[in-house]
Amino acid sequence: MRISQPSYRSSTVTMDLMLSEYELIKRIREISEKNDIWRTYIGMGYHNCCVPHTIMRNIFENPGWTTQYTPYQPEISQGRLEGLINYQTMICDLTGMEVANASLLDEGTAAAEALALAYRQNKRKNLFISDKVHPQTVSVIATRATSLGLTYEVGDVFKIEFSAKDIAGILIQYPDTTGSIDNFTNVVKNAHANGTLVCAATDLLSLAILKPPSKFDVDICVGTSQRFGVPLGYGGPHAGFFACRQKLVRLMPGRMIGVSRDANGNDAYRLALQTREQHIRRDKATSNICTAQALLANMSAMYAVYHGPQGIKDIASRVHNLTLVLGKGLEKAGNKIHNEYFFDTITVSPKHSWDTVKKNAEQAKINLRYNTDGSIGITLDETTSIEDVNDLLKVFQANVTVNDILKDDDASKRSISESPFKRTTPYLQHPVFNIHHSETRIVRYMKALENKDVSLVHSMIPLGSCTMKLNSTTEMMPCSMRGFTDIHPFAPVEQTNGYLQLFSELEKDLCAITGYDNISFQPNSGAQGEYAGLRAIQCYHESQGNAHRQVCLIPISAHGTNPASAQMAGMQVEPIFVRKDGSVDTAHLNEMITKHKQNLSCLMITYPSTNGVFEETIGDVCEMVHEAGGQVYLDGANMNAQVGLCRPGDYGSDVSHLNLHKTFCIPHGGGGPGMGPIGVKKHLAPFLPSHPVIDPLSPKVDNRQNYGAVSAAPYGSSAILPISWAYIKMMGPKGLRKATQVAILNANYMSKKLEKHYKTLYKGKTGLVAHEFILDIRDLKKTANIEAADVAKRLMDYGFHAPTMSWPVAGTLMIEPTESEDKGELDRFCEALIYIRKEIQDIEDGKLDASINPLKMAPHTQEQVISSKWNRPYSRELAAFPAPFVKGSTKIWPSVGRIDDIYGDKNLFCTCPPILPEQ
Amino acid sequence: MRISQPSYRSSTVTMDLMLSEYELIKRIREISEKNDIWRTYIGMGYHNCCVPHTIMRNIFENPGWTTQYTPYQPEISQGRLEGLINYQTMICDLTGMEVANASLLDEGTAAAEALALAYRQNKRKNLFISDKVHPQTVSVIATRATSLGLTYEVGDVFKIEFSAKDIAGILIQYPDTTGSIDNFTNVVKNAHANGTLVCAATDLLSLAILKPPSKFDVDICVGTSQRFGVPLGYGGPHAGFFACRQKLVRLMPGRMIGVSRDANGNDAYRLALQTREQHIRRDKATSNICTAQALLANMSAMYAVYHGPQGIKDIASRVHNLTLVLGKGLEKAGNKIHNEYFFDTITVSPKHSWDTVKKNAEQAKINLRYNTDGSIGITLDETTSIEDVNDLLKVFQANVTVNDILKDDDASKRSISESPFKRTTPYLQHPVFNIHHSETRIVRYMKALENKDVSLVHSMIPLGSCTMKLNSTTEMMPCSMRGFTDIHPFAPVEQTNGYLQLFSELEKDLCAITGYDNISFQPNSGAQGEYAGLRAIQCYHESQGNAHRQVCLIPISAHGTNPASAQMAGMQVEPIFVRKDGSVDTAHLNEMITKHKQNLSCLMITYPSTNGVFEETIGDVCEMVHEAGGQVYLDGANMNAQVGLCRPGDYGSDVSHLNLHKTFCIPHGGGGPGMGPIGVKKHLAPFLPSHPVIDPLSPKVDNRQNYGAVSAAPYGSSAILPISWAYIKMMGPKGLRKATQVAILNANYMSKKLEKHYKTLYKGKTGLVAHEFILDIRDLKKTANIEAADVAKRLMDYGFHAPTMSWPVAGTLMIEPTESEDKGELDRFCEALIYIRKEIQDIEDGKLDASINPLKMAPHTQEQVISSKWNRPYSRELAAFPAPFVKGSTKIWPSVGRIDDIYGDKNLFCTCPPILPEQ
Repeated sequence: MRISQPSYRSSTVTMDLMLSEYELIKRIREISEKNDIWRTYIGMGYHNCCVPHTIMRNIFENPGWTTQYTPYQPEISQGRLEGLINYQTMICDLTGMEVANASLLDEGTAAAEALALAYRQNKRKNLFISDKVHPQTVSVIATRATSLGLTYEVGDVFKIEFSAKDIAGILIQYPDTTGSIDNFTNVVKNAHANGTLVCAATDLLSLAILKPPSKFDVDICVGTSQRFGVPLGYGGPHAGFFACRQKLVRLMPGRMIGVSRDANGNDAYRLALQTREQHIRRDKATSNICTAQALLANMSAMYAVYHGPQGIKDIASRVHNLTLVLGKGLEKAGNKIHNEYFFDTITVSPKHSWDTVKKNAEQAKINLRYNTDGSIGITLDETTSIEDVNDLLKVFQANVTVNDILKDDDASKRSISESPFKRTTPYLQHPVFNIHHSETRIVRYMKALENKDVSLVHSMIPLGSCTMKLNSTTEMMPCSMRGFTDIHPFAPVEQTNGYLQLFSELEKDLCAITGYDNISFQPNSGAQGEYAGLRAIQCYHESQGNAHRQVCLIPISAHGTNPASAQMAGMQVEPIFVRKDGSVDTAHLNEMITKHKQNLSCLMITYPSTNGVFEETIGDVCEMVHEAGGQVYLDGANMNAQVGLCRPGDYGSDVSHLNLHKTFCIPHGGGGPGMGPIGVKKHLAPFLPSHPVIDPLSPKVDNRQNYGAVSAAPYGSSAILPISWAYIKMMGPKGLRKATQVAILNANYMSKKLEKHYKTLYKGKTGLVAHEFILDIRDLKKTANIEAADVAKRLMDYGFHAPTMSWPVAGTLMIEPTESEDKGELDRFCEALIYIRKEIQDIEDGKLDASINPLKMAPHTQEQVISSKWNRPYSRELAAFPAPFVKGSTKIWPSVGRIDDIYGDKNLFCTCPPILPEQ
Repeated sequence: MRISQPSYRSSTVTMDLMLSEYELIKRIREISEKNDIWRTYIGMGYHNCCVPHTIMRNIFENPGWTTQYTPYQPEISQGRLEGLINYQTMICDLTGMEVANASLLDEGTAAAEALALAYRQNKRKNLFISDKVHPQTVSVIATRATSLGLTYEVGDVFKIEFSAKDIAGILIQYPDTTGSIDNFTNVVKNAHANGTLVCAATDLLSLAILKPPSKFDVDICVGTSQRFGVPLGYGGPHAGFFACRQKLVRLMPGRMIGVSRDANGNDAYRLALQTREQHIRRDKATSNICTAQALLANMSAMYAVYHGPQGIKDIASRVHNLTLVLGKGLEKAGNKIHNEYFFDTITVSPKHSWDTVKKNAEQAKINLRYNTDGSIGITLDETTSIEDVNDLLKVFQANVTVNDILKDDDASKRSISESPFKRTTPYLQHPVFNIHHSETRIVRYMKALENKDVSLVHSMIPLGSCTMKLNSTTEMMPCSMRGFTDIHPFAPVEQTNGYLQLFSELEKDLCAITGYDNISFQPNSGAQGEYAGLRAIQCYHESQGNAHRQVCLIPISAHGTNPASAQMAGMQVEPIFVRKDGSVDTAHLNEMITKHKQNLSCLMITYPSTNGVFEETIGDVCEMVHEAGGQVYLDGANMNAQVGLCRPGDYGSDVSHLNLHKTFCIPHGGGGPGMGPIGVKKHLAPFLPSHPVIDPLSPKVDNRQNYGAVSAAPYGSSAILPISWAYIKMMGPKGLRKATQVAILNANYMSKKLEKHYKTLYKGKTGLVAHEFILDIRDLKKTANIEAADVAKRLMDYGFHAPTMSWPVAGTLMIEPTESEDKGELDRFCEALIYIRKEIQDIEDGKLDASINPLKMAPHTQEQVISSKWNRPYSRELAAFPAPFVKGSTKIWPSVGRIDDIYGDKNLFCTCPPILPEQ
């Protein structure tokens, strides 16, 4: 007799043990409970907040929101685009700036992007950073500046000498890291008079009662919107924001939502100014940023929609008033407060010894910010209660309570509302922020937006290179566990044993999968990973006395992020040709290696290639590069076609980033969060990212210097790492290999099924493709005037999101089915494409009109097909129900007609349009 | 200076303290953690199971599923109706019976309903219950039988003497409560030969490998589907099932889903045979059951859809094999196993002393079933691991492990698969159970069903008397907390301190709100509450020597459940007239009181009345009844119009049930779960429901005898009580009163806004209505041939669910907006009704066709309005977009056209229709 494995969602054995869903949750719960949740008043850009439960459940825990793709197909993405334009409006309103994006990765990288913009704008090579900026921000900027060959100084911004006109930009913090609020009017005036741009890192909640930075005439505002309803999550994910003057908009990094119009002339949202981005401009792009923090930006925007201007102001006032009371109480008891004006943070020189205060705090399980100069920082937040403040007073042995202090009227003496810093301008005046203040309303608003968008809960999204695979509930559940959500990234490491175990286990598993020796979890996106990996290579060369090795060879078929990252890492990008069959032109590669032998830094290559082919020469290629003294950066974007079959570390790569949001099941969230940890061979480990507050490498990696941070948080977006951990633990090695095999099988099944109808661009020698394949649509332009975009839009009428469009080859569609889709869905998608091919045939045959046909007019909205005025030369049924599997009971409708991109870029408008939304 | 309350979702002060959402979750988490979760092998109809996380998150935690109403409007309810017909199919397949309902409240009440059916069928007054039936089932049957004046015997079913032909029905359990599997063929043969019906309580999971009860030719099967993916929840909520022969279908209690056809001739689901139910047949109904367990039935059905026949069989086989191994191991070590054949449960006479085993078990934190005869029951389940079995062997000090036993081939000697009880017939063969086995598929299936239905996430559902109000996420979150979900209802009370605290606090609060002295949480629906309350009255009269007091006066305006419950409680129902203004005819009441003075048991009355009016005479009425020696049962259905304003206990009522799923925020779940606890004055407290395993009254209520159970679990559906607890704690007394006031205000606002367009049937003397009001549609039948149903169906085109239709007065619509809806939504709903009134005017004026008009043809489907063949005398736009606020981007579509009810009842078909569902 034999006892079978628990049959519930299980298969065989795992890296250390294959776990069923039930066992997995038990195990991860135990790990999460090893994190100690203390009351934490460390601040530094990370704050506890009351995440509205309805937003947590209906957005963060809802696959209808988490499994959406980046809104490149705007007609079926209007819901999240509206959410993101709310976000931009909120950022513009609170900062007072003219335009904002949605979004960047964190405050640190946003600040680095801001100063890089200054450099791009005025080409000066010196930066100045206020010494009152958060240390992790300084570190990220230092890393980026060094790569770009810029110098930076950290010091007192009130003493900057601008007159040499050699400073590109300065960064101030408002309120600053010590909590103080300063008047920067003169600093900005001086800077501008000398051609220097001024960037301000700021705190969104403070701006509800504080004069916005725009009043000082700054050029750029950055920060994080974490405290607007997103859990701490040990450092992430949260959305970083970036806002600037209108005139800088074309230099602004990251994704921006704009208002355009659709085929019916109605307002419609879309991603604006895509031409700035790295997939178009490659090494000339404004930034390498690709994955943003869309899901978290949507949560923060919804927090503002829910609370509205008065609610936000109430929260800010309460936090501020509690801080005033705390400050007063501490002063009364003989402690010295360093700040004249402050919002939620004070820096205290304690009356009693630092050690006494620390001991008291630890006894009460309270974390404070202990500065090396003997002062102590305290930051309050939305969750702070009167009892908490009383406990803080006790920690400082102040013999006074909140109620005592409230009786004393001069507690409000330093109140912002009685200071020159008082905010006088309104914000969040748009109706969307003023009608959804009950849970009934906000739930309906969230649901209405969700239902406008196609996500994985509707149908397959076969995006080549983007791997829209299953993100299972079991993998997602730990992200809501308190032990993971409620911990500050700078909490003492002794309190983070759960996270440390998680990182350690995940590192072990990822090393086993990739063949690398070490993993850094700090890069919080694939692009960040590329940058961090290339930087490790560069630092390695420097350490070997080869700082001159700066040439980075990149095949022209590479994703645009590759050259953009290489340029940010200070490299000189040299393109390598690609042969007709899609493979790297090894002859040209050879030639270029020889040519740049002395200065070769690395080859950056994707495997299997972006054209969907396993190149048999990959081992030889790596060897050639190594022989020339170079390093190999293998782009891990297509790791999902390798897991369990081959390991980059085995065939010669030195470093890769791993897109955990592709291969390892972190959902796309409508354009983020992602995670881009990097795996490296041992010799590169000392050059992995460090951190000025919590060292993520200690004590694992020896012989290293501090190579600075690439992200604001020591372990990037830690709170979503349980997803990948869970995936690996449940699949086990056999399951992981099977997934890879099935992904490849599915791609080949579809490729075969479609080959009679469409031309597949590249195949391997065996006639097979890898995990994705490219359909060439270019000939149809000549025969029927049909382009890839027409097919993509028409697919919406069939209920499908388009595959990747015009990448890596213009005029093509790249399809990646993943292992998660079953035969029924693969068949339906193929059938949709075959039906569409027949429609194209009808155009070619003259049976359908050459210009007014279902493809050119796609996608079709309800208003169009239901209109009495329908006068098209094809039927309403063909428009709306073009296949038997498209039925009224489950039909997916685009909420707007085809969007006019050119109009949108010509008439750039990036905040909520001045009309009443549906009420 | 003043520190404001935490601004996040707070208002003033609470019963003991008003809590913010953030504080509330902290507090309820602490309470939940006071429940100790031990490994529990008690069985008795309650089993741990692996709730598929994706079903938990996407159904149980999803307001799109939880906030649906009972599917009385089938055109916008096809999603959950499909789920429920899957449930019926699953029950029919596994039990082998011809028809099943969806669903009953628990196994105990289902068994009582089964025997009551036998009594209704053959009119015999004696019942026989196997002594191998779970004790709580016996207790519930005993309670019901006594009320109905039936006798019952508990004994060995193999020795029943049927020949007197006086036994209505017998109940067997298969496998029985000790775990044994018996052959009932001869018992059934004997019973049938003598006109006795045979009911079998059975276990769904066992039937995956066990010959179904239908093979013994039983007439009725009952049980619980809890272990099909629903958490234990300390006893509920879970769905009870009821399946029977086709020829008994019209006697079957509860809701049944049938297949009918829509206006286009397509299959469509609906509630079948409504005419059996209490809202039509009143005291002649098959049962008083009203609220079912729709949400849980949907979860269980989805569990079967997800696992499919092979998956279910694998789970059953694994549980069975582990039990075989455990039994073998215990036997080897000298323990005696009582059962020859068994599925998952064995009864053991231990080798070592009972005390030793118990001590060992407690040390290992393991709960077993300790029988009074010195034997010990052990029941395994889906979650049991090999390590668990090893631990159980250790508890009995058996020096053997699972691996030892597996080496020994005769472990499988008693296997069902090698016995005469082996199942040979297939099940779950319908495609729906065979295509959704990956998470990707099941998520899309759940989402597709969800999106067919209108729920509170779309728009207001202003159901008079049903109070579709906000069910906030914060209130729902505790229902997923492990401390509440994972505890067995018969766990030792020392392990349930969290629940005990919850019950105690909620009882205190509900007493404060109602003016009663005690609360019983056992009734798990409003109807159950009515029954329990009336029974308390009856037992009270008996205890006073007044057993003859059996007359129950009920106004004819009462909900049909009232007389149905009274009849089940053994009362003689006497109707009281209602005056033209909707109020009780006090003269007639007076007359009837006088007439029945000697035999008066009670008056059962609703306040404010079902006609939506506060009757000023309520105090006097109560006094009159008391003077005549009667008791007052005040139906708590409209408690939401009283909370904070008046208390039934103050103006003279003796007992009420409280529909927690109306007033106290438990969501309707598409037709359940609900909770119907009863509040009583002190003199009735001794007569509250008891329980044979865990006594819910001990030690609070003195001077009582054991009055038996009304539900299978001691505290009913305990796991949803945190919802009501949370609501009260967050609102506080001021908030609760405000909610009542706003609910009344909203109803009057709408009433006023609509009075120029529709006739309001009843108003109070002041010209005001209570929390709901009735629009009279009857005149429009004459002027435009329009009936209430036409208005209801047309409202769907406007995106709204209809109000309560034709109740309490035929040809009317009863509107209850609740306090949760804001002015924008109230206005939109009123506008929809005003637009519809204009359409009716157009019919009256001949501008719209008398028979083919938007009302008669409503609701309109996509296929209809998009069809090229549209040839109606009104426009597609009028059909689909009849008001400016109905737009394509948020339009709600019925997934089928108007359903033909008569066809459905004539052609009764209650399992999945034999066509391929959408794949």
